Amino acid sequence: MTYRENVEGLDASILMHPRVWEASGHVENFTDPMIDCKQCKSRYRLDTLSDLIAEKKKRKIIEAFLENISKNNLPYDLSNSDIKNFSEHELNEKFNSILENNEFGKILLAEINCPQCGNKGTFTEARKFNLMFKTFVGPVEDNGSVVYLRPETAQGIFVNFLNVQSSARQKIPFGIAQIGKAFRNEINTKNFLFRTREFEQMEMQFFVKPAEDKKWYDYWKHERLEWFYSLGMTKDKLRYHDHPKEKLAHYAKEATDIEYLFPFGWGEIEGIHNRTNFDLSRHEEYSGKSLKYFDEESKEKFIPYIIETSAGASRSFMAFLVDAYYEEEVNGEQRSVLKFHPKLAPIKAAVFPLVNKDGMPEISQKIEKDLRKNLKVFYDDKGAVGRRYRRQDEAGTPFCITIDTQTLSDQTVTIRERDSMEQIRLSSDKILSYLLDKLSQS
Amino acid sequence: MTYRENVEGLDASILMHPRVWEASGHVENFTDPMIDCKQCKSRYRLDTLSDLIAEKKKRKIIEAFLENISKNNLPYDLSNSDIKNFSEHELNEKFNSILENNEFGKILLAEINCPQCGNKGTFTEARKFNLMFKTFVGPVEDNGSVVYLRPETAQGIFVNFLNVQSSARQKIPFGIAQIGKAFRNEINTKNFLFRTREFEQMEMQFFVKPAEDKKWYDYWKHERLEWFYSLGMTKDKLRYHDHPKEKLAHYAKEATDIEYLFPFGWGEIEGIHNRTNFDLSRHEEYSGKSLKYFDEESKEKFIPYIIETSAGASRSFMAFLVDAYYEEEVNGEQRSVLKFHPKLAPIKAAVFPLVNKDGMPEISQKIEKDLRKNLKVFYDDKGAVGRRYRRQDEAGTPFCITIDTQTLSDQTVTIRERDSMEQIRLSSDKILSYLLDKLSQS
Repeated sequence: MTYRENVEGLDASILMHPRVWEASGHVENFTDPMIDCKQCKSRYRLDTLSDLIAEKKKRKIIEAFLENISKNNLPYDLSNSDIKNFSEHELNEKFNSILENNEFGKILLAEINCPQCGNKGTFTEARKFNLMFKTFVGPVEDNGSVVYLRPETAQGIFVNFLNVQSSARQKIPFGIAQIGKAFRNEINTKNFLFRTREFEQMEMQFFVKPAEDKKWYDYWKHERLEWFYSLGMTKDKLRYHDHPKEKLAHYAKEATDIEYLFPFGWGEIEGIHNRTNFDLSRHEEYSGKSLKYFDEESKEKFIPYIIETSAGASRSFMAFLVDAYYEEEVNGEQRSVLKFHPKLAPIKAAVFPLVNKDGMPEISQKIEKDLRKNLKVFYDDKGAVGRRYRRQDEAGTPFCITIDTQTLSDQTVTIRERDSMEQIRLSSDKILSYLLDKLSQS
Repeated sequence: MTYRENVEGLDASILMHPRVWEASGHVENFTDPMIDCKQCKSRYRLDTLSDLIAEKKKRKIIEAFLENISKNNLPYDLSNSDIKNFSEHELNEKFNSILENNEFGKILLAEINCPQCGNKGTFTEARKFNLMFKTFVGPVEDNGSVVYLRPETAQGIFVNFLNVQSSARQKIPFGIAQIGKAFRNEINTKNFLFRTREFEQMEMQFFVKPAEDKKWYDYWKHERLEWFYSLGMTKDKLRYHDHPKEKLAHYAKEATDIEYLFPFGWGEIEGIHNRTNFDLSRHEEYSGKSLKYFDEESKEKFIPYIIETSAGASRSFMAFLVDAYYEEEVNGEQRSVLKFHPKLAPIKAAVFPLVNKDGMPEISQKIEKDLRKNLKVFYDDKGAVGRRYRRQDEAGTPFCITIDTQTLSDQTVTIRERDSMEQIRLSSDKILSYLLDKLSQS
C-alpha cells in the first residue's frame, strides 16, 4: 500500500440537504416509470412488464395497437408483416420502445391484460417513481421536512470539494475518495449482492483542469483495471464496456464500465466517467456559492472538470469472492478453496500445533500471539492437520504455520502456501517478515 | 495495535426488517412525548416546554394547577407554600414530573399559554413521537412497507450473533464489534457533534456465560476507560457515571457512562452495560428462531448474557479534538496546537526541505515518497520553516522532518517533536523505524 499524495479521504453524511438532490438532478430524473392496474392494484415497472407477457400474446398486442393508430405518426417504420418476421429480441425492443413513448404508450397499454387479474384496459398512465428513499426530519411528515437517503456517495464529495481542497491544501489535479453506504429503492432486487437496496460504494472524484480531462480519464481508466488485476482477479473475466456517445448520461462526456463475468453474465463493478464541470456548476447554481478553484500559477479561476471512478464495493466484493472460488482434487479428495489475494484474505495465517503435547501448544500460542500484533491470525489445534488445512482453504487463508517436533529442537516451523500447497521450513523468528513480504506483493 | 483473538468484526445493514425494532422495544418505547398547539400548530417536545416559560410564570401555572385539583390524589406532597420556597431547579423538576403524569399533565397543560401564539388551553394531549426515521420500501407508502433507519448498531449484532459465532468458530466468551452510522430523529440537535440526527457509533457486544456477567462487566468497564487514557486523553476530564438501580434502562442490570468534560459540561461518550439475556431472548421470541448457544464443555444450551461497550465515535472524536487543543506562547508568539496522540493524528509526519535548491528538494521528495508507503505524510516547501512548523502544529502532526545542508553531506535529518518542540538528528534511513516505534507506543 502507498498513500497517494494527491487523494484525500472524506466521510460525508447520508442525509444531506434535499436541495443537493435537486442540483444533482436526482429529484427530477432518478426515476423508473411505473403503472398500476386500477382493478387489482398491482404495480409494475413499465420496462419489466414485457417480461411478464408471452411472446405470442405480445405479437397480437402490437398488431392490435397498429390497427388502432395512424402508422404515419409512428417515429419508426412498423407494420403487421414486420411483426411476423421479428425475432423475440426485436419484438421485445419494439414493445418497450412503444411503451416508453408518451404518445403511443397509452394506446399500447390499452391492449394489454393485467398479468395479475387478467383485465384489459385497466392500467393507469405511466408515471415516474423516484428511486431515492425519502424520510422526514422532525415530527411533521410534510413536503417541507422531506430528506433523502443518498443514492450515491459522489454528491457528498462535490458539495465538499472546496472544504477539502483548502483544508488539505491540495492543488489541482487531486482527488477526494469516499467509501460508504448508498440506498436505492429498487423495485426488483436481484443476483445476491449485485442489486440491493442498501449497498456500499467506493468512489473517487478527481478534479482536473478542463483541458486535461482526456488525459486523466485515460489514466484512471487504465489504473482502475490494473487495480483489479493487482488483486489477482482473472484477466479474462474483466473487460471494459465503453458507452457509445448516444447513450451517455446527461452529465458525461465519456464513460466506461469495468465489467466482471459473473456466473449470471457480465455485470458492471465500476464506472469511470468524465463528468465535465456539470456537477460543480449545478451545485454552484443551486447553492448560490462559488465552487470555483483559483489556480495560483495561471491566476485563473475556473470550475474544474471531474473524472470519476465509481466502484461498487459490494459488487466488487462479490466479484472477488466468485473469482476466488475453486473446487479441486487433492490426493483423491475434493477441496473447496478461496484463492484470495493475501491482501484480501480475512485471515492472513493459521497456526497449528501438530499435537497438543510436548510443549507444542506453548510455542504455538507464543507464535500466534506475536503475529496477532500485526496480522489477523487463527489458532487451530482441533483434529488432523489435513482437516485443519481444508478449513483454512475454505476460509481463503493464504498461509498455514505448523509447529512439529522439529520445532522443539531447532525453532523452525513449516509454512504451507494455500494455492501451490508447497511447504517451506523457516526459523520461527522469520515468520512475520516472511508474511509481511508476501502481503505487500501484488 | 493487537488484534483481539476473541472479538470479530461485523458490518450489518442500516435498513433491517422492521420486526427487529419491535423485538428490541424501539417501535414501542423509543419515543419522546410531543404536544401541538391547536391554534398555531406549533409543536413542542413535552420535556423541553418548561425551558420556554419564565420562572415566575411557571410558579403561577403550578399554583393555578393546584387550585384545580384535589391535592390528595397527587403522587407527591405539594402545596402553594412549597412552590414559593422551591429553587428554580426544584420548580422545573416538579413542573416536568406533573407534565409527564398522564392524569395531571392535561390539567397543567390547560394552564399554559402557548409560547408561540400566547393562547391558553390550546394544547393537544401529549402523545408519543418515535425517534426512529422511517422510510418505505417499494413504491407504495403504507404501513406494510415501512422500514426504519437503525437508531443503534447494537441490534444488528444481536440478530447476527449465531451467524458470526459459527462462521468465525468462536466460543463464549467472545465479542462482535461494529463501527457504523446510526440515525435518530432528534427534535433538538445541539452542541456541535454531541447530538446530531446522523452519527457514528462504535459498539462491541461481548457474549458471556450468565454467571460470569459481573466479571466481564467490570473487565470492560476498566478496559474502556484505559483505552481513552492510552490515547492520551486528560485523566481529570474523564469519569464514570454509574447508573443508580432505579434509573437503569429496561434491559440493563448494571450500567455506567464514561463522561468527558466538554466546554459545555460533562457529557457521555461511551456506555458500558450489562444487558443480561434480554436482547437475545426478545429476538428469539419475535423471530421464532433459537439464539441459544451450545457450550461444548458443559453440554448445555443457553442464551448468553451480553456486556455492551457502546461508544459514540462522533462524540469521542469531538472529545479527542477538544482535549488536544492548546494555545501556547512560543518565543513570544502564540501557537495553536493539536496535541493528538500520534495514533490519532491524521498526518503522521511532515517533510520540509530547508531551501529549494542544492539538491534538497530531490532528497526530501525521496524521503517523503519512501515514508508514504507506510504513513500519511505531508510535503511542504513553502515559506519560513517556523511558519511550516506552525501549520503542522495546527493540524496536529506529531513529527516534522527537516532536510538541511548537513543532510547533503552526511544523510542525516532533524526530527522535531510537536509537543516538546525538541529536535534530534537521525540518519535518514532510520526515519521510518523511528516513526513506527513512536506510533506503536501508548
